[in-house]
Amino acid sequence: MLYTSESLESVIEHLSRLPTIGRKTAQRIALYLLKQPREDVAGLATALVNMKDKTLYCSVCQNITENDPCPICESPRRDRGIICVVEDPSDVLAVEKTNDYHGLYHVLGGVINPLEGVGPEELKVRELLHRVQENVQEVILALNPNVEGEMTTLYLAKMLKTFNVRVTRIARGIPLGSELQFIDEATISRALEGRVTV
Amino acid sequence: MLYTSESLESVIEHLSRLPTIGRKTAQRIALYLLKQPREDVAGLATALVNMKDKTLYCSVCQNITENDPCPICESPRRDRGIICVVEDPSDVLAVEKTNDYHGLYHVLGGVINPLEGVGPEELKVRELLHRVQENVQEVILALNPNVEGEMTTLYLAKMLKTFNVRVTRIARGIPLGSELQFIDEATISRALEGRVTV
Repeated sequence: MLYTSESLESVIEHLSRLPTIGRKTAQRIALYLLKQPREDVAGLATALVNMKDKTLYCSVCQNITENDPCPICESPRRDRGIICVVEDPSDVLAVEKTNDYHGLYHVLGGVINPLEGVGPEELKVRELLHRVQENVQEVILALNPNVEGEMTTLYLAKMLKTFNVRVTRIARGIPLGSELQFIDEATISRALEGRVTV
Repeated sequence: MLYTSESLESVIEHLSRLPTIGRKTAQRIALYLLKQPREDVAGLATALVNMKDKTLYCSVCQNITENDPCPICESPRRDRGIICVVEDPSDVLAVEKTNDYHGLYHVLGGVINPLEGVGPEELKVRELLHRVQENVQEVILALNPNVEGEMTTLYLAKMLKTFNVRVTRIARGIPLGSELQFIDEATISRALEGRVTV
């Protein structure tokens, strides 16, 4: 027996299965929770089950929501002519934080990854192509700039060509606040390629 | 509204209050949990409440336990003549992992820290002095080697002097697998001081 309490051991076991949390961190969190008031721990437990019970995927954009369609798809203030395609719900949040985008989203639920057996059928590609037929002027591809994201971007661009819609991708270049000397050459290449008139 | 789901927001809020977990990690964990089967999430939630409800502090050694006295204090195989004094329950685990210690423990619940208003009264010092009166031959002070741990070690050593008990402290020196060139000079000083005949 490693711990003097089975229920503590069980919490550590559960926590260490979560991403970014190793066994040591799990132990630290469990011991921290032990010191907290019961209602705080119960609050976390309730929040977890609550989230699991209340959330579903929006039938239009596939984002996480509690009502179907989701508040973004429902909002009369959003531009229904633009769809921004992202990989995950967390990417929707990242774009929303800019406060600069007022169109709709489409969450693919992943990217094409042949090594892991993820093809277009595993993603919400069909749903996207279906949406594009309804008065959409532009599709912005905002996938992560890695090999899989690139592959998916090219695949989607090809699929969308048959529709009467403008297909764009977000710019790749040097991030704000960075220093040229520390940026990799591939990024600088893209930045040069995508240069704009001042 | 940042998220399209209040219950998701609530989980992120709760998780980001935990030690070592920032808002980004909380978001990542929450989205990970969303993808897991309901029973896994419910399992974590139940484990949390369960731990909170079942655990208590051992009235003898002040360690976390589900039964009072704890399995270590109860065990007939432990040497009741030695008490190892540690700061936290996680330190008990660290010592237990060595498989080299067969005495009892005493968890102080912290160390003396005047800046944070923690004096001997806030710690389980009285309980320790009480235990020492009952047939204890040795008290091993195994507190962390920092200023507060040092202060507490010296304080306890002074308090224990009045009892007929041997008071020792764990050796400070170079850790195994390290290289002398990377060890700080204070540690090397202690290692020289504590040298033993080969």
